Amino acid sequence: MSPALAEFIGTALLILLGNGVVANVVLNKTKGNNGGWIVITTGWALAVYVGVVVAGPYSGAHLNPAVTLALALTGKFAWAKAPLYIAAQLLGAMAGSTLVWYNYKDHLDATADTGLQRATFCTEPAIRKYTRNFLCEVTGTFVLLFTIFYFTGAELGKDKTPIGMGSLGALPVALLVWAIGLSLGGTTGYAINPARDLGPRIMHALLPINEKGGSDWNYAWIPVLGPVAGAALAAGLYLLLI
Amino acid sequence: MSPALAEFIGTALLILLGNGVVANVVLNKTKGNNGGWIVITTGWALAVYVGVVVAGPYSGAHLNPAVTLALALTGKFAWAKAPLYIAAQLLGAMAGSTLVWYNYKDHLDATADTGLQRATFCTEPAIRKYTRNFLCEVTGTFVLLFTIFYFTGAELGKDKTPIGMGSLGALPVALLVWAIGLSLGGTTGYAINPARDLGPRIMHALLPINEKGGSDWNYAWIPVLGPVAGAALAAGLYLLLI
Amino acid sequence: MSPALAEFIGTALLILLGNGVVANVVLNKTKGNNGGWIVITTGWALAVYVGVVVAGPYSGAHLNPAVTLALALTGKFAWAKAPLYIAAQLLGAMAGSTLVWYNYKDHLDATADTGLQRATFCTEPAIRKYTRNFLCEVTGTFVLLFTIFYFTGAELGKDKTPIGMGSLGALPVALLVWAIGLSLGGTTGYAINPARDLGPRIMHALLPINEKGGSDWNYAWIPVLGPVAGAALAAGLYLLLI
Amino acid sequence: MSPALAEFIGTALLILLGNGVVANVVLNKTKGNNGGWIVITTGWALAVYVGVVVAGPYSGAHLNPAVTLALALTGKFAWAKAPLYIAAQLLGAMAGSTLVWYNYKDHLDATADTGLQRATFCTEPAIRKYTRNFLCEVTGTFVLLFTIFYFTGAELGKDKTPIGMGSLGALPVALLVWAIGLSLGGTTGYAINPARDLGPRIMHALLPINEKGGSDWNYAWIPVLGPVAGAALAAGLYLLLI
Repeated sequence: MSPALAEFIGTALLILLGNGVVANVVLNKTKGNNGGWIVITTGWALAVYVGVVVAGPYSGAHLNPAVTLALALTGKFAWAKAPLYIAAQLLGAMAGSTLVWYNYKDHLDATADTGLQRATFCTEPAIRKYTRNFLCEVTGTFVLLFTIFYFTGAELGKDKTPIGMGSLGALPVALLVWAIGLSLGGTTGYAINPARDLGPRIMHALLPINEKGGSDWNYAWIPVLGPVAGAALAAGLYLLLI
Repeated sequence: MSPALAEFIGTALLILLGNGVVANVVLNKTKGNNGGWIVITTGWALAVYVGVVVAGPYSGAHLNPAVTLALALTGKFAWAKAPLYIAAQLLGAMAGSTLVWYNYKDHLDATADTGLQRATFCTEPAIRKYTRNFLCEVTGTFVLLFTIFYFTGAELGKDKTPIGMGSLGALPVALLVWAIGLSLGGTTGYAINPARDLGPRIMHALLPINEKGGSDWNYAWIPVLGPVAGAALAAGLYLLLI
Repeated sequence: MSPALAEFIGTALLILLGNGVVANVVLNKTKGNNGGWIVITTGWALAVYVGVVVAGPYSGAHLNPAVTLALALTGKFAWAKAPLYIAAQLLGAMAGSTLVWYNYKDHLDATADTGLQRATFCTEPAIRKYTRNFLCEVTGTFVLLFTIFYFTGAELGKDKTPIGMGSLGALPVALLVWAIGLSLGGTTGYAINPARDLGPRIMHALLPINEKGGSDWNYAWIPVLGPVAGAALAAGLYLLLI
Repeated sequence: MSPALAEFIGTALLILLGNGVVANVVLNKTKGNNGGWIVITTGWALAVYVGVVVAGPYSGAHLNPAVTLALALTGKFAWAKAPLYIAAQLLGAMAGSTLVWYNYKDHLDATADTGLQRATFCTEPAIRKYTRNFLCEVTGTFVLLFTIFYFTGAELGKDKTPIGMGSLGALPVALLVWAIGLSLGGTTGYAINPARDLGPRIMHALLPINEKGGSDWNYAWIPVLGPVAGAALAAGLYLLLI
């Protein structure tokens, strides 16, 4: 796999499994209906695990423009490769979201609440106050990137698998995302990844669903710019500390 | 253990623990009654863990005809051994399912809903639409096999335990099945394994249960052919990429 | 630590944490009240983890007469040391149970249901039918011991920590007990350990609790003899296979 | 990072994620509202994981005055460095708590129950009886420290990462805290760390919240002195055993 293809496939797997667990919990008549926050956060954590396992050896498994940005800002990744990575991530997120839509289409159509339908694509704040929502996304993404800088045993942007670990080398980042979701996801739903939110939001606008509501474009800039700011903040603090 | 015996015992453990957790959650008067999707998916993931720990060093722990097929299609497993593996898997699933039936017999008899009784044997779609149900099983099995191809530190079909990992080398595939269950299991209940569904369905037809319903043979082909198609798709894409 | 002291301390930790989680979930006014089967089974799995971490390097962390028996039957442990190990396990279980009683005493007194009070000491079947209850304990203990025989990277009865694993070498047995609890615990509450059930049952008979019920001695032989039979069965099959 | 800065940042991350999960579960209108004990304990365990990953290589990741005390008592840490460590932990806990307050401010204001508001800062016993509450904190902290002494593959106070483990070397202590929370947290909410409780309690007194209640200073000494006594007990028993 080329790095860009790895980012595309890895992000598609991330969103297929990540938005898949949301669909399973919030849509009507699913087997995981009303499974609760533990199901959603465990599902997203393992979605990261699977995406990193597949893409890790080929692209370093950024799967997130905020990761690409933070690595570029700290000199761990070439700026020249960033646009291709980010494009692949966005397209991968759109592809993964389309697969969720197809798999759960009958359940989407059986769910009257347009907010729950949209929740299977993109995030929405629990209490809508744009300044704080923005800063919540900054906080979550800061924790993500700052901690990633301190992972050991793996060379960031190259290979996530320390010698002798097998595919368990992808587990730390999954545990980290599990932590962020459980603890910081309660406010804005922890997008912490511009591609994860924008790609599926575009697909929500494009794909047919029975009695579909709007795609909430007013909010769309927050889960894009908040993670960008959080990543920059983490990169800046990291550079300051080393 | 011979490879075939390992497949038989490993698959029996997989189904004993996997269908066991379903019985614990859906049947009346159990201690795990109404434990929710987190209990079911964690139980199935760990069922895979146990089966792979036991069978891994002897047979490579396929435990699933879809795995055997995908490995054969990609040249990682000899076609000539496939029929014996698949037969052992099917018989193991039947044995494991019989043990679940025996352990939970009083609870099966205390449960009036024939659908819940049958759920402790084989899968049923949440919304019955055969085309989409089929493609959901394709999706889940595709994710299973495609990701397995990218596991590192273990030579597929030979040994699942990287040097220095001990039995934790069996954890990645359990995490993967956990992910698939949480995220993609909401539609058809993630059979993703022809033996896992067909073997227990046969036992449902054969074993006595108070006021037993039908075995839903109309649906039986989907959790067999869907996983076969998903495995073939994963093998094809993998071959294309390498 | 001497091996016997390690068995005592390890089993005390096992029961303190294992019965502790039951107390937290079933007693009135606790913070984990009504936390469900996922809380109970995760707590017991991690109780095993902690006990094995502490006792592992000193005694091999049997923590269970059924483990001692199975290892002795397969020639992996000297029969002469078995009585001391088993006595230490039983006393450790009594000590751990006493600590749970002390920690949760106000909650025990605030709980009117004598069955729930006793559940924080020892097991009770969901549906009382002695033959099947016995065989459920056989099944659970068989899965425990049979799988332990196939753990790799650790020399049973000597050291649980493969080189380079740190204390994660104690994780596989915790995952195994998690699996058994989730899947097979729904019928009899998975004693799968004679000391785990008998030691606390003795303490239930001895310790003061407001409006305490009987200690259900009629059932007491099943979680002792069932695990013994299950361990013997696992040892026998293992010997047959190698 | 200097050791003191690592303790500050690590403890801030610990409390941001730890108190964050409490806020997510107990406050009104959050996405994790009413998520249950499994969410709270998993979140706290992973909060420890993240804090240890970041601070581990720089300070040994005590993140807790009780840890610092126990290591000093057993000669594994220089007494002279203890005051700086403890000050950094307390300030880190205050910083982390302030971030939780900011992130969840709208939800704090939307929650009328002053006890639930305060629960997102510091602990409160389920049944208020000071002697037993104190001894519950002793028990929990004893289990924490005593088990830490038996972790292998990591030199305490130096580096938590065994060769070849990558950041998974931080997992055992997270599993341990998960165990303590699930099993022993039901009575007093497992402070088991003086900084974790006192730092946020100070912030509760200082920060503005709509219709804020008192900071329960009557109870404040228990989650400080209980953990100190538990750590001393663990250190004493450990010294006796070696």
